[in-house]
Amino acid sequence: MEFRTSPESYRHWRLATDGQVATLVMDVAEQGGLVEGYELKLNSYDLGVDIELYDAVQRLRFEHPGVRAVVVTSGKEKVFCAGANIRMLAASSHSWKVNFCKFTNETRNGIEDASENSGQVYIAALNGTASGGGYEFALACQHIMLIDDRSSVVSLPELPLLGVLPGTGGLTRVVDKRHVRRDIADYFATKAEGIGGKKAVTWRLVDEVVPRARWQDQVSERAQAIARGSAGDGGRRLVERSGDEAGIPLAPLDKTRTGDTISYRHVSARLDAGRGVAEITVHGPAGDAPASIADVHAQGAGFWTLAMTRELDDLILDLRTNETEIGTWVLRTIGSPDRVLAHDRLLLDNPADWLAREIALYLKRTLKRLDVTSRSLIALIEPGSCFAGSLLELALAADRSYMLAGLFEDADGDAGPATITAGAINTTEAPHASLLMGNGLTRLQARFHGDPDGLAAVMKRRGEPLAAQEAEELGLVTFAPDDIDWEDEVRIAIEERASFSPDALTGLEANYRFAGPETIETKIFARLSAWQNWIFYRPNASGPDGALRAYGTGKRATFDRKRV
Amino acid sequence: MEFRTSPESYRHWRLATDGQVATLVMDVAEQGGLVEGYELKLNSYDLGVDIELYDAVQRLRFEHPGVRAVVVTSGKEKVFCAGANIRMLAASSHSWKVNFCKFTNETRNGIEDASENSGQVYIAALNGTASGGGYEFALACQHIMLIDDRSSVVSLPELPLLGVLPGTGGLTRVVDKRHVRRDIADYFATKAEGIGGKKAVTWRLVDEVVPRARWQDQVSERAQAIARGSAGDGGRRLVERSGDEAGIPLAPLDKTRTGDTISYRHVSARLDAGRGVAEITVHGPAGDAPASIADVHAQGAGFWTLAMTRELDDLILDLRTNETEIGTWVLRTIGSPDRVLAHDRLLLDNPADWLAREIALYLKRTLKRLDVTSRSLIALIEPGSCFAGSLLELALAADRSYMLAGLFEDADGDAGPATITAGAINTTEAPHASLLMGNGLTRLQARFHGDPDGLAAVMKRRGEPLAAQEAEELGLVTFAPDDIDWEDEVRIAIEERASFSPDALTGLEANYRFAGPETIETKIFARLSAWQNWIFYRPNASGPDGALRAYGTGKRATFDRKRV
Repeated sequence: MEFRTSPESYRHWRLATDGQVATLVMDVAEQGGLVEGYELKLNSYDLGVDIELYDAVQRLRFEHPGVRAVVVTSGKEKVFCAGANIRMLAASSHSWKVNFCKFTNETRNGIEDASENSGQVYIAALNGTASGGGYEFALACQHIMLIDDRSSVVSLPELPLLGVLPGTGGLTRVVDKRHVRRDIADYFATKAEGIGGKKAVTWRLVDEVVPRARWQDQVSERAQAIARGSAGDGGRRLVERSGDEAGIPLAPLDKTRTGDTISYRHVSARLDAGRGVAEITVHGPAGDAPASIADVHAQGAGFWTLAMTRELDDLILDLRTNETEIGTWVLRTIGSPDRVLAHDRLLLDNPADWLAREIALYLKRTLKRLDVTSRSLIALIEPGSCFAGSLLELALAADRSYMLAGLFEDADGDAGPATITAGAINTTEAPHASLLMGNGLTRLQARFHGDPDGLAAVMKRRGEPLAAQEAEELGLVTFAPDDIDWEDEVRIAIEERASFSPDALTGLEANYRFAGPETIETKIFARLSAWQNWIFYRPNASGPDGALRAYGTGKRATFDRKRV
Repeated sequence: MEFRTSPESYRHWRLATDGQVATLVMDVAEQGGLVEGYELKLNSYDLGVDIELYDAVQRLRFEHPGVRAVVVTSGKEKVFCAGANIRMLAASSHSWKVNFCKFTNETRNGIEDASENSGQVYIAALNGTASGGGYEFALACQHIMLIDDRSSVVSLPELPLLGVLPGTGGLTRVVDKRHVRRDIADYFATKAEGIGGKKAVTWRLVDEVVPRARWQDQVSERAQAIARGSAGDGGRRLVERSGDEAGIPLAPLDKTRTGDTISYRHVSARLDAGRGVAEITVHGPAGDAPASIADVHAQGAGFWTLAMTRELDDLILDLRTNETEIGTWVLRTIGSPDRVLAHDRLLLDNPADWLAREIALYLKRTLKRLDVTSRSLIALIEPGSCFAGSLLELALAADRSYMLAGLFEDADGDAGPATITAGAINTTEAPHASLLMGNGLTRLQARFHGDPDGLAAVMKRRGEPLAAQEAEELGLVTFAPDDIDWEDEVRIAIEERASFSPDALTGLEANYRFAGPETIETKIFARLSAWQNWIFYRPNASGPDGALRAYGTGKRATFDRKRV
């Protein structure tokens, strides 16, 4: 699977911009499925369709920063979107289903992030029925309009028709975002035929219904009003934009992939199938930071932070999807901590600059992908590394970190002992550039959850390069072995990881990575997705007589009626 | 399975009280397992052992209200408790495992509730190794003491040895309650041999380690100090007790069980296996409320609220464990709303009375059991019913409620149309008697999550009997059909429920019932348990070569290494 794409090669979407309003038309090619065996009827989607959606959302942010309202609508008659393709799901392996849901969830969370933090407010213009994942897609938008034509409805038919949950945030967003009352939500999720018209508004399932005759005008007026910041975003507009910001093109990533290496300009990975390990190295900036934010604009997609983030993002998606047996990711960095911090500084010091904000937001989203990645993450902090500021987040995202105290005896080169440095970007000091986790905390806050003294001690040393022993004492790294112990300790940690049950590790990591508060986003990845994973795995859904397999065959599913 | 027991018939525990300190000694009878096929070695437990623990905790609250510190310790040499018995787990069905974990979780949450809200502070005195569920049991106590004898440790060996999670709150409590740093927690959960001595304190896994020579004295001194309220409960003591309160005996429940009926004095259930339905009826008080709190003490376990709660508690446990194919519980009440409210009033008006507090706390815990019960709950509100105050919670806990508008045409009797009444006990007005859900909200707050106007409108009508149409308009019931539509609407709702996938319903209900904030408790039942359910169901744990089955056989488990 390849996640890189661009609008010229979209098969399923059309993206057009007109001043401050963009329109994203979903028009799925029925024969355009990723693999044989299913047709993408009724604007249903598979991973290929969603990869294009993800790309469009990213390009809107970087290439069309003047856009302030994005209208999502359908190119088909009478149907907005029927959700994930059922035959695709029925034919997919368990790990494919789970990984597919994770990516679609991340894309929808990214759409909310654009509405909330980038001033690009998404409007779902449902010109036909939105069912299942189609309605969940709409739920991720800030404003939902439904055509009132006596046939178009919104629905979540997964439970009655397929014996699974709406797994793309639907259950969570219905009650926690749109505040549909739980008993109404219960009724709605059992009513396969859906709800339309005024009742859909009364029950808060959509924001407005619009007669067919008024549809085009109303959608356009609404989009203009939202673009002007006068309606539809709940007054939460955080970003003022003039509307004539010039975007920066996201040039194709330069990527080389062999069976056991993946390389980009700043990021590379060596895959060791035998040990089940990917050794990932992130290189810090090769040169000094640009002198000003104007120079960052001039560098565009070549600016180190953005280039590195795009590469890391692609690598995460590639490994997750294509290398399911690589259970441990070892994270290293190489480069100058000062240069990393200087690049961070450009993002931190320019809260009014759209590009500075977008790069920080993108880095935030990419680091969040790590948090929900079902792989063990081990950071190795060695001489010559640059775990500072934004790159320190890699170590903080890891399940464990090992930092060498002193130098390797046989070290060549003249790097001194490794240091790590917490910078302003690791805190909430500059809110526009805070790298918050899905639970609303910085990784430092989550690490020291319930330990304010520990956090305060770290904050005091902000900006200082910390050697291994100090870092360990402050709780910033897990272990700080010296040269003599390093090899054994690290080897055992990695080998041991490969010997444990991958399922139990996934559960362990999902629980430990999110101490503290929960949000809609963490609820989607924990409560909702964990239940869905279980349901997907049960014969009542995926067995030979399960509902997913029976759908469309005319046969009724047979259920084991035992509740657990 | 039978959940009723009493200290005279305990096989696994010894309960002794000495003034304000109680000691609960775990001394599991190896041959005392519930079924053949396993021995309960090393103080490992099965459901039978945990049922006795639950009974002991309840009796301490009601029969020994003067107790202010409860020391939990082991009657075995060198071992505190080895957790759930592995062979029992390996031989159990999936639904048994899940249900067993749920009950053990509820019991541990109840222990925390006693420490926090009843002034009965639990102290884990680990006079030997506490591993797995044994350490999780300790984590539910307020203060953990570990003997320092160079061999006793605490450990969570589930992941490395069994390929499953510590499923009794361990992962959540380690990071969210004891604030162990996540990377340390990760290391700890992979180190099967555990951690003892000073390191266990440094890492916050226990509160103190005590040399063997000082053990008895130190435990006793600590218990006395905690009983005096001077240490170990974090200054959170909310309840002042003199220490010479007289308890009330919890007389055996009067229960009749046939194949299709379960009856107590105030609660009854008719089971319809064909339809997959249990029709549960709760009767309101048969007489007027006692005149004073002194009279409540005189009535003791006969006081309606306490008697009804005990019966409902037992019924929930019975149905959950013994009737897994009964997927829908229909909830009705019969009686006088005024009498229910008058009984509530005695609890609300006596915050300084230990018994009033205990009864409200017990009702709170029992209603929480409903929230985490994996059955569809449908409340039917008919003429002659008494969904008022405490019993209104049954309707609010339901996934849906139907309230008859008007009367049944063929009604005999002279009951007027049904009403419902919200009372002070449905609010947070009297904090000691608030029936909070696990997420810290009242059921009214959760129902109107994100809709403060809706909640305010209901609060305004507090104390007023509301007829069907008003109740529906206020959002207190889901539907209010009249006599003509009632039978069809209700029948279809129930039949439909039985036609859906039981797994999908479980997932749906678990998501919808907990809008809003999350707490340690909801994280345990959602994030942790949902992952554990999935892991339990995977071949890597429960398959013929899975880790649970391989344990103790000398064979290594074989894992499918794919991450999902």
